[in-house]
Amino acid sequence: SSETSDFHMNRPLVPGVYVPTMCFFEEGTEDVDTETIARHAVRLARAGVTGLATQGSNGEAVHLTHAERQLVTVTTRKALNESGYAHMPIIVGCGSQSTRETIQLCREAWEAGGDYALVLPPSYYAPLFAPASETVTSFFTAVADASPIPIIIYNFPGAVGGLDLSSDVIVQLSRHPNIVGVKLTCGNTGKLARVVAATRKSSPSTAGGNSSQNHPDFLVLAGSADFTLQSLVVGGHGILAGLANIAPKACVRTMQLYSEGKVAEAQAMQEVVAQGDWTAIQGGVVGVKSGLQGWMGYGGHARSPLPRPNAEQANKWKEGFRELVMLEKSL
Amino acid sequence: SSETSDFHMNRPLVPGVYVPTMCFFEEGTEDVDTETIARHAVRLARAGVTGLATQGSNGEAVHLTHAERQLVTVTTRKALNESGYAHMPIIVGCGSQSTRETIQLCREAWEAGGDYALVLPPSYYAPLFAPASETVTSFFTAVADASPIPIIIYNFPGAVGGLDLSSDVIVQLSRHPNIVGVKLTCGNTGKLARVVAATRKSSPSTAGGNSSQNHPDFLVLAGSADFTLQSLVVGGHGILAGLANIAPKACVRTMQLYSEGKVAEAQAMQEVVAQGDWTAIQGGVVGVKSGLQGWMGYGGHARSPLPRPNAEQANKWKEGFRELVMLEKSL
Amino acid sequence: SSETSDFHMNRPLVPGVYVPTMCFFEEGTEDVDTETIARHAVRLARAGVTGLATQGSNGEAVHLTHAERQLVTVTTRKALNESGYAHMPIIVGCGSQSTRETIQLCREAWEAGGDYALVLPPSYYAPLFAPASETVTSFFTAVADASPIPIIIYNFPGAVGGLDLSSDVIVQLSRHPNIVGVKLTCGNTGKLARVVAATRKSSPSTAGGNSSQNHPDFLVLAGSADFTLQSLVVGGHGILAGLANIAPKACVRTMQLYSEGKVAEAQAMQEVVAQGDWTAIQGGVVGVKSGLQGWMGYGGHARSPLPRPNAEQANKWKEGFRELVMLEKSL
Amino acid sequence: SSETSDFHMNRPLVPGVYVPTMCFFEEGTEDVDTETIARHAVRLARAGVTGLATQGSNGEAVHLTHAERQLVTVTTRKALNESGYAHMPIIVGCGSQSTRETIQLCREAWEAGGDYALVLPPSYYAPLFAPASETVTSFFTAVADASPIPIIIYNFPGAVGGLDLSSDVIVQLSRHPNIVGVKLTCGNTGKLARVVAATRKSSPSTAGGNSSQNHPDFLVLAGSADFTLQSLVVGGHGILAGLANIAPKACVRTMQLYSEGKVAEAQAMQEVVAQGDWTAIQGGVVGVKSGLQGWMGYGGHARSPLPRPNAEQANKWKEGFRELVMLEKSL
Repeated sequence: SSETSDFHMNRPLVPGVYVPTMCFFEEGTEDVDTETIARHAVRLARAGVTGLATQGSNGEAVHLTHAERQLVTVTTRKALNESGYAHMPIIVGCGSQSTRETIQLCREAWEAGGDYALVLPPSYYAPLFAPASETVTSFFTAVADASPIPIIIYNFPGAVGGLDLSSDVIVQLSRHPNIVGVKLTCGNTGKLARVVAATRKSSPSTAGGNSSQNHPDFLVLAGSADFTLQSLVVGGHGILAGLANIAPKACVRTMQLYSEGKVAEAQAMQEVVAQGDWTAIQGGVVGVKSGLQGWMGYGGHARSPLPRPNAEQANKWKEGFRELVMLEKSL
Repeated sequence: SSETSDFHMNRPLVPGVYVPTMCFFEEGTEDVDTETIARHAVRLARAGVTGLATQGSNGEAVHLTHAERQLVTVTTRKALNESGYAHMPIIVGCGSQSTRETIQLCREAWEAGGDYALVLPPSYYAPLFAPASETVTSFFTAVADASPIPIIIYNFPGAVGGLDLSSDVIVQLSRHPNIVGVKLTCGNTGKLARVVAATRKSSPSTAGGNSSQNHPDFLVLAGSADFTLQSLVVGGHGILAGLANIAPKACVRTMQLYSEGKVAEAQAMQEVVAQGDWTAIQGGVVGVKSGLQGWMGYGGHARSPLPRPNAEQANKWKEGFRELVMLEKSL
Repeated sequence: SSETSDFHMNRPLVPGVYVPTMCFFEEGTEDVDTETIARHAVRLARAGVTGLATQGSNGEAVHLTHAERQLVTVTTRKALNESGYAHMPIIVGCGSQSTRETIQLCREAWEAGGDYALVLPPSYYAPLFAPASETVTSFFTAVADASPIPIIIYNFPGAVGGLDLSSDVIVQLSRHPNIVGVKLTCGNTGKLARVVAATRKSSPSTAGGNSSQNHPDFLVLAGSADFTLQSLVVGGHGILAGLANIAPKACVRTMQLYSEGKVAEAQAMQEVVAQGDWTAIQGGVVGVKSGLQGWMGYGGHARSPLPRPNAEQANKWKEGFRELVMLEKSL
Repeated sequence: SSETSDFHMNRPLVPGVYVPTMCFFEEGTEDVDTETIARHAVRLARAGVTGLATQGSNGEAVHLTHAERQLVTVTTRKALNESGYAHMPIIVGCGSQSTRETIQLCREAWEAGGDYALVLPPSYYAPLFAPASETVTSFFTAVADASPIPIIIYNFPGAVGGLDLSSDVIVQLSRHPNIVGVKLTCGNTGKLARVVAATRKSSPSTAGGNSSQNHPDFLVLAGSADFTLQSLVVGGHGILAGLANIAPKACVRTMQLYSEGKVAEAQAMQEVVAQGDWTAIQGGVVGVKSGLQGWMGYGGHARSPLPRPNAEQANKWKEGFRELVMLEKSL
């Protein structure tokens, strides 16, 4: 059927701004709020982002059942398709402790209309890995072998007990035909430079933009908006960053200005983005939801046991985003 | 029906040796091996332990689906009931990141015949807790309010990104009528002494045993076998320790000797246990399974991506348990 | 001269309570306050402790110059000698990052009248150790070869970036003729049991005391007062614990009661000690000094940049020690 | 005298490449090798670097006495002055645990001819800080008030038990007239962007270079060579990076190419630098010395207990730098 083809059409992974979307819940029941999820996805798409990612840290993946994860992804896919964004790819967070469940999540992501799987390494038993790099490599290889959708490696030491994948490990994994990118939330732009250099087949891009970079063999994404330019200048391909839930246009425009060679303007915008991101980094999903609620009138709260900001805290999060939101509204 | 009553009969939490049982898998498929799970449970019961715990770290809880978790607990419950151990309690690991899923796991544990829920605090979003002790307290209170079975707090900083519950927090939580104990895997016996002192209503036990301690108001368990006596001497009530999968009788006998006032003999046995535990601590679920396979002829491997020991490693794990197994066989 | 012989007489390392003494400073200048240092040392000696340790964490070793370290040790030695405690040994903290400076500190400790050197492993460059256990072993061996006084290994992961010496490493080092003990501040009493078992030549002691333990070949000390009994019950030889600055008699009496076989009384006293220690653990040198000032009228403040408690905080530290101080005064 | 004026002349802190120089030792005695220290300093100066820094992590500050620290700085100062580099500034590592000793080190640094003091926050008693940001701010303020030379904040969480100064704290401290810069070894280029933005008075520089940036009010330096461009693109002023001991010209040229607007060439060179830096990051002072010895014929070994590479390891370090050294020799 056409719906099936809409669900599973080819959506290439190209440079740009990707948004790990928030998951929203009904206020009283904490049930998944599909209406807000759909509305938020469309808002982001209309702002010009390149793709969305469900079930990242901002999407509260660890608070969702398998069925809820699929509901969120299906809702997002349908909302995009119905609003004219059928070509926009969805990345789905699929990390888990066992190889078996990770593969299962990749399959369920595909069923729900996901195009790529973002996979954290397992870490609960990390002291038993023998050694870590070998077990991690085996894990990603087994998952990539079995997954119906391509894998994006997710390097986020803060979420996995400090386990930090080196450039060597990432470069080795990049050779697998079904591993197509990495999100570096570690913030290590030296590592990012090494990974870009080792995985790029074409010549390096220039500050003035480079069409040969439009379909990189291996997509290297910064995990936070506060190091967008810092990644682009060494050949990075964009960001997958929670702050874009608040200010998608500012994130997109920062990249555009740089690729158009307007470095000083890009730098000025990057500064506002970086300052706003400081609030997002400190507040995490709690602060970003509070900021959304304060400025956009929706957002609500994270699932329990995450705390709900009191009035003073909510105001603090709102004010932390003020300058960025003013910029966003001017774009 | 009688089966239902068997499932949900009253099984008090008394001092003793509790075993966080391994979960076993078919060699090729990695499917749950219910036959071995049942056989192992009965072996432990016959060795004289006080209770079992499914879905701890040794039980690879993070590698199991909800349905598999129930299968393991049901299998264990039935195996005990059918072998004359219907009165032996089963503790079920129920920790999760959301309050919602944790309560769900407690309900499923009860449905599967579990008697108590062992609950880790959530930690994925710990930097957003406000402050940690308050969010943790709210979490445990909400879970205990809703759970059909009583809660045992699981303090294991190594499994939750370093989140370490203080004696103050544990003592405060102990006042909840549905929170009945704590497993201290942190190894902090000073904390253990404070918790015992603050939660005990009767007078302290003596080295010679004390029947008034048979039904403590709040059960304080050491999380490793290598500090059994160190816990008992300050009023602790026993252990919930992975090493008992290898040497249940030695663990039980160490406690008995101490409670009979045979301190020197207890100390001598504790030394062998502590040395064997060093192998279990280093090898974790990989090493303990390897030791079981080497000495008892069953055990197999942990689920992927946990590595499988090669011949040399398997021999190292086996030898690490030799002295302890010799002791065990002599009891 | 007789003074020299007083300085360097043979002072065996026997089981008991050792106190890592505070270092005191003049209020305005932060210069070393030798008068209070001397008075404090004599107070502790009169309370019946077995030995003192200068330049531990409580002694603010990292805040002192080499000359000040010697001044503190000389002052302590002279105060003891002049008060009739010439036989009381002094342990001197001598850890440093280079083998060279560590040996120098050991020599200076000896010159100042120190009897034993307490040595932390270096950790600044720990990621470059190859591997850690080998470099640490080489370090301790080189220091013990060159030091004029015997070495006590100091295992305190919290002070050295998490570097935690295993029982294997400690047991291996214990074979060096000039390495005579270990202070375990890690709180790992399972490790303590393994080290005691492996380093003891005679038979294990009983709860009723054992004279054959009076001169152990390798002294194993708990690093905090809150696990005194927990160490003794597996053959440990005592404590080297900051809390004894506040309540030396209670610490000594806890050990005595246990060695006299009065386990229930020892346990009751251990509870008060453990609760008081919780304040000392939280407050560290800042809280213990504040407690001393509040209850004994001396103590002052730690060197900058350590903060000075305001009135509210000072009261909190004082109250945290109330029950323990009441016990101490009753002894 | 003219020598005194040479020692203490005004040497502004300008953007560029700063090298934390290695400290060299005689092979047998491990005594300070002043001849090699002088020779190395001159080699770096001739390669075109902007300044040197003694007593950083690469300079083994923690292995040196106060007198040796002064010897190293004096030797470096004299070597520069005698070779025509009297105007080249020297930064001196002065971090210590007490405010008192830190000020003393700043004074000694000035006496030895140092121009700026690079200061780590104290961390040994960090859990007692109240709160960390307040104690750290007090510390830096007191040091800056008393130091005869301006202070550069050194943010290197890996060296101080994870203590990581936020952009808020750094920006607040930048307002002190005697705090003139920061070295960010944390690698957090988002933080770097925030600090640059908040401390800059003039307009942002462009990729094409900007003379108004020649005397920034607050100098923001990257702590590793592998994120040079990533810092420059958001207004950073250069690097203070150990890799420049191996390849000073490549580091300098990378910056120059970028400031000349040759971004693609800068990027290509940055890739080689970043790959070489991966070896320096893994090997630390041990690997960099080994690389120097392998390629330049001098370097020797770090002080004990740092391990000495065997032949195989030495070859690994040498090969890790091959591509970079080939580039360096071509410049």
